[in-house]
Amino acid sequence: MKHICVVIHSRANYARVKSVLIELKKHSNCNLTIVAGASALLFKYGNVAEIIESDGFKIQHKVYAAIEGNDPVVMAKTTGLLVIELSQIFFSISPDLVVTIADRHETLATAIAASYMNIPVCHIQGGEITGSIDDLVRHAITKLSHLHCVSTKRAHQVVSQLGEDSKSVFLTGCPSLDLVKSTQHEPYLEILKRYNPGINLEVFQSGFLLVLQHSNTLFYDQARSETDVTLSAVLKTSLPTVWLWPNIDSGTDSISKRLREFINSGMKSNIFFFRNFKPEEYINLLKQTLCLIGNSSSGIRESSLIGTPCVNIGLRQQNREVGPNVVNVNFDSQHIFNAISAQILHGKYEETTLYGDGNAGKKIAEILLNHKVQINKEFVIWKE
Amino acid sequence: MKHICVVIHSRANYARVKSVLIELKKHSNCNLTIVAGASALLFKYGNVAEIIESDGFKIQHKVYAAIEGNDPVVMAKTTGLLVIELSQIFFSISPDLVVTIADRHETLATAIAASYMNIPVCHIQGGEITGSIDDLVRHAITKLSHLHCVSTKRAHQVVSQLGEDSKSVFLTGCPSLDLVKSTQHEPYLEILKRYNPGINLEVFQSGFLLVLQHSNTLFYDQARSETDVTLSAVLKTSLPTVWLWPNIDSGTDSISKRLREFINSGMKSNIFFFRNFKPEEYINLLKQTLCLIGNSSSGIRESSLIGTPCVNIGLRQQNREVGPNVVNVNFDSQHIFNAISAQILHGKYEETTLYGDGNAGKKIAEILLNHKVQINKEFVIWKE
Amino acid sequence: MKHICVVIHSRANYARVKSVLIELKKHSNCNLTIVAGASALLFKYGNVAEIIESDGFKIQHKVYAAIEGNDPVVMAKTTGLLVIELSQIFFSISPDLVVTIADRHETLATAIAASYMNIPVCHIQGGEITGSIDDLVRHAITKLSHLHCVSTKRAHQVVSQLGEDSKSVFLTGCPSLDLVKSTQHEPYLEILKRYNPGINLEVFQSGFLLVLQHSNTLFYDQARSETDVTLSAVLKTSLPTVWLWPNIDSGTDSISKRLREFINSGMKSNIFFFRNFKPEEYINLLKQTLCLIGNSSSGIRESSLIGTPCVNIGLRQQNREVGPNVVNVNFDSQHIFNAISAQILHGKYEETTLYGDGNAGKKIAEILLNHKVQINKEFVIWKE
Amino acid sequence: MKHICVVIHSRANYARVKSVLIELKKHSNCNLTIVAGASALLFKYGNVAEIIESDGFKIQHKVYAAIEGNDPVVMAKTTGLLVIELSQIFFSISPDLVVTIADRHETLATAIAASYMNIPVCHIQGGEITGSIDDLVRHAITKLSHLHCVSTKRAHQVVSQLGEDSKSVFLTGCPSLDLVKSTQHEPYLEILKRYNPGINLEVFQSGFLLVLQHSNTLFYDQARSETDVTLSAVLKTSLPTVWLWPNIDSGTDSISKRLREFINSGMKSNIFFFRNFKPEEYINLLKQTLCLIGNSSSGIRESSLIGTPCVNIGLRQQNREVGPNVVNVNFDSQHIFNAISAQILHGKYEETTLYGDGNAGKKIAEILLNHKVQINKEFVIWKE
Repeated sequence: MKHICVVIHSRANYARVKSVLIELKKHSNCNLTIVAGASALLFKYGNVAEIIESDGFKIQHKVYAAIEGNDPVVMAKTTGLLVIELSQIFFSISPDLVVTIADRHETLATAIAASYMNIPVCHIQGGEITGSIDDLVRHAITKLSHLHCVSTKRAHQVVSQLGEDSKSVFLTGCPSLDLVKSTQHEPYLEILKRYNPGINLEVFQSGFLLVLQHSNTLFYDQARSETDVTLSAVLKTSLPTVWLWPNIDSGTDSISKRLREFINSGMKSNIFFFRNFKPEEYINLLKQTLCLIGNSSSGIRESSLIGTPCVNIGLRQQNREVGPNVVNVNFDSQHIFNAISAQILHGKYEETTLYGDGNAGKKIAEILLNHKVQINKEFVIWKE
Repeated sequence: MKHICVVIHSRANYARVKSVLIELKKHSNCNLTIVAGASALLFKYGNVAEIIESDGFKIQHKVYAAIEGNDPVVMAKTTGLLVIELSQIFFSISPDLVVTIADRHETLATAIAASYMNIPVCHIQGGEITGSIDDLVRHAITKLSHLHCVSTKRAHQVVSQLGEDSKSVFLTGCPSLDLVKSTQHEPYLEILKRYNPGINLEVFQSGFLLVLQHSNTLFYDQARSETDVTLSAVLKTSLPTVWLWPNIDSGTDSISKRLREFINSGMKSNIFFFRNFKPEEYINLLKQTLCLIGNSSSGIRESSLIGTPCVNIGLRQQNREVGPNVVNVNFDSQHIFNAISAQILHGKYEETTLYGDGNAGKKIAEILLNHKVQINKEFVIWKE
Repeated sequence: MKHICVVIHSRANYARVKSVLIELKKHSNCNLTIVAGASALLFKYGNVAEIIESDGFKIQHKVYAAIEGNDPVVMAKTTGLLVIELSQIFFSISPDLVVTIADRHETLATAIAASYMNIPVCHIQGGEITGSIDDLVRHAITKLSHLHCVSTKRAHQVVSQLGEDSKSVFLTGCPSLDLVKSTQHEPYLEILKRYNPGINLEVFQSGFLLVLQHSNTLFYDQARSETDVTLSAVLKTSLPTVWLWPNIDSGTDSISKRLREFINSGMKSNIFFFRNFKPEEYINLLKQTLCLIGNSSSGIRESSLIGTPCVNIGLRQQNREVGPNVVNVNFDSQHIFNAISAQILHGKYEETTLYGDGNAGKKIAEILLNHKVQINKEFVIWKE
Repeated sequence: MKHICVVIHSRANYARVKSVLIELKKHSNCNLTIVAGASALLFKYGNVAEIIESDGFKIQHKVYAAIEGNDPVVMAKTTGLLVIELSQIFFSISPDLVVTIADRHETLATAIAASYMNIPVCHIQGGEITGSIDDLVRHAITKLSHLHCVSTKRAHQVVSQLGEDSKSVFLTGCPSLDLVKSTQHEPYLEILKRYNPGINLEVFQSGFLLVLQHSNTLFYDQARSETDVTLSAVLKTSLPTVWLWPNIDSGTDSISKRLREFINSGMKSNIFFFRNFKPEEYINLLKQTLCLIGNSSSGIRESSLIGTPCVNIGLRQQNREVGPNVVNVNFDSQHIFNAISAQILHGKYEETTLYGDGNAGKKIAEILLNHKVQINKEFVIWKE
């Protein structure tokens, strides 16, 4: 029996590990512990814990730790608190391996708690390059981890460059793309109706835009004006729009405040706001939208395999590897409007397997269960 | 005016930044804040804060945060607590730059708190390779830092390999070597008498061994038996010995317990135990000892410029760059005894400038004050 | 010079200490430090810190510490975090006296941090009896405090019964009533327009109801249904209504969610929602409303001196001393509706000085500055 | 099945709840969880957790939380950290009742975490009056607790005066006295030999003094000089002496440092130092010592039933109810010496049942299992 502990701190975390969890659950020699913390427990951010449980998984530990506030100091404090809480939990349950996902500020807490306690850490989605604080967090996690399941060839190279032994780095593709493959079609109108029975289906039946725009915490004081810009471009299209509330981050309060002002202004528009969808529902929206707008990595990652036209705005994902489906623009309302128009005109793209082919979960589960981890890892020096 | 905040968590931290502090204090355009935390405040670990103040520096914030216990879980919790405390302090004082030193588990807290709050971080002594959890911590700090003052050419290369822009990496040498240059000679008998008036000076006047052996937290449950081995080798020499209590770490309690048992056993020996020396006193001991024994980095670092014969034991420093003065042995009592004998026979080595030439403080102060830091740093990909 | 540190954690905290702060500021021998923490920093709860600063006070330390979540575990964790943060701040600033206000869960943190560090604590508004967890918190704070400024005769008796030396208990009245006296009249329509320019002034000009209903954390899972009941009673009146969002507490998310559902339902009503008012604006609303509904202590406290008709619902304030202006009802929609109707019919009540006569601030400031506190306090045993 | 969680933070905590644990373990309808935290896990303070486990109990959660340092700020921080940790554990295990013991600073954390989460709290040993910060902590815990098992009639009265419903207050006696009754005789020389094989048994066989002196944290800066005074008095007697290291508290480092200096001075004496004994061993020492000296409550509590002559020094216990066996003196070396002499001359006292008759464990277990707790407790006002 191998005791594997997976720590989930957000909705994105879950979408990127769900197929792994499904595989682990099938293995009789795996003792699986799921820990859900921070925004994964909060209604405001989509109540991911509830979705996890409704998917049939048991969450053994729920850790409230998200400190409220719009200033970056709360990201640091939340992370510190999580280091304390997670280390106590790891101390109580003594897992053989801990899994941490991607690059949110809280995920570094998981890597610190485990590695300091000499528990091997597997990092999923290391080695990518994006363009905000996420880069710092992601690569720091790589250096604290012992096992790496990466999504792209470049990520593999980057993790190796970071000094990791290539025997500990596996190119598995991203588990979020497994959902792209496995998700059954459901008409988007059904999904939207489920969350907002009052939505105007007639308006929506000719297609819709999907907007998801987060704060870039490095410049979190621009979050409000960035929201202005995107909002104005989207309004200009007059197209029916599904707009998701942003993740918990410094700057998010500013975004939410701006959106709430828009809502309260009573201004007529075809924009509808949603808190969260289940991973599969979101995949269906990605498959059926005319265009995804904002700075969500799903526009680059999942959308690459779907071929969703994507308008990626600003610096948050500026350095990420992208498929042909992505158009990068800066925060300029007219540029965004033009890009949306062009993307709609183009329509769906060919799928690419840049971020994986939809079989990551199985591969990662095998690695987690069978790879022998070296706790005393060594730095591999490259010749320049 | 540039507001620079230097965070010190241990005696080693201080020795490695003291010459920088001296230089910063001279600059009229520098607003210097010193924060002392964790073991730097504890009598048991040498009361570094008191030494800092007696050296004429003001400590603006003292942060008790070291959680007691021999299990690695306390290293994680202490770090989490420090993230919380330091981020609150940084929030209150808004420094322009934060300086973190070396690679102890607590120093990562400094880097997280500052970088998450978009405050540039300068890391002193990054890029080295050693062989314990310190490696993980040190490289994770590099990835969270924006400015790097490294000690060796190889360290410079490693930091670059880690993806840091070479414009942000400076080969300054290690500030601890500045003390080697600046420290005035004081006979070691004077120093020892100062801390232990009852010491047998007659025995000591023909020379002495210096022992400093810490726990390797990756294998902290071997700390007791490792102490046994070294103790037995040192006893076999019958030479007068200055033995320093170890740093705060998982495993330290086991070492201390073993040493205390030895003391309480009443067994006759020429070993005397000391809690701490001032940086300059320690340099004088390094300059005058017959041989340094254990796994302290001072045997490799400061001793390289002095030429102190050093017997480095075990895995803790196994991968570190060393000068000719260092002999590596594993935890085998006979091997250690032989190595000590050989080193004493050899006597002092030629100095090497592997870790610097004694002018690091000035260089680092210049860089801290004048280098324009890019908060939105980019990863530099190498071709393999 | 006496260094007095006042800690404010919520909008109610501020209203109940503002007149004291005004007085302290006048004294040249008072070094005043204001610390604002937890919900006092959050936009969602009215950004009290901003109001404090716009009133001309300097906040020396702002402490983000409110952990998000609807479960009572977050009240405990927030309190623990505040103990850590406040003790570090008190350690840095070494005040001669710390002031803590009332009975919210966070205020206990202030009393623990200070009393454990041998810093005298003055508690404002101790000795009252209400009916929820607040009772436990309030009396625990009394036991950790050295100086007590109470609002009512019964409170004086209760603090004495709790074993406090009567020489340390002062009947000053409640500082929130000072604002009742000092606040200049401003027409409520002006105030409402300021916060919601789109409000229907014609509807409102014939008078309005004021609703403020918090969660009783002892039964926080009933918060939603309690909101239902009150909402339904208020809707039945059809009267224009100013409804304030509740304080941060376990159960508050349930209340907010229910109110948001109501807002999003698009149902026509005369209810308008507001996040916060300045203390003086709120006093003006209390003075001009037809009836205050809910379970806010302002309906009992400030309203006693104004004579505001108040319908107090449920257990949260069940045991509090009340003036003739208060009618207690349980959570029954019809009972609430009837009570509102009766109160409107009755109209304004005579003022009573049950909770003070509006001169508390001056008295308390004198006591804070001049009373010699005994840190080694003794328990006074009563004969039964 | 009733799920009862007992939280133990020190050696004294354990001695005062052990007989309750024995009884609870016998009950088939009791699901018992033991949490050990803070100094209960530390070797330096006697490794209570190990003793608990060697007594056949399982500790479900071990919580390292004691922050090192001699300043009172660490007592506050440790308590804050424990509130966070314990609330997370209570959230995970959902006990029906939490038991907290006595009055150390950490025990307040247990009461806060549980009461804030609406979990009933039983406090053992409330209502006593002593004379240091313990008083504040103890009575604050009473106000946060729902069920009270007290040791003396006066304690019963004090808890009632504190406003607690007398139906929730039970005069059970102190469980530590159960051990006095149940402990089998073991010659003290056997016990001392077990912990220090090198002890001079010949010297000790004619009787011994027992010393246990803690810091009074209200005046922790006097801890060193107080140690001086007692040490000097004890040395003057020339009698063989068993001296126990003090509890973890602000000031303890000063005491330990002073004692260590004495040890290292090499001065000849008959004083031997011990870290800890098992509860039963300690009872045997209390039964056989010539006189107990210091400020431990065991001199008042357990010793009352044994009749141990006790010299109680200083303010720490100044207001406690005592039997005829106790002589109070202040910190004056000559007074202490005289009091010791007089007590030895007097010899053993008659037993009194002031603190119980040795059947508390059974009674308390019954109450914990069967008493229906009112979570919404009301304050009982006394007429003065």
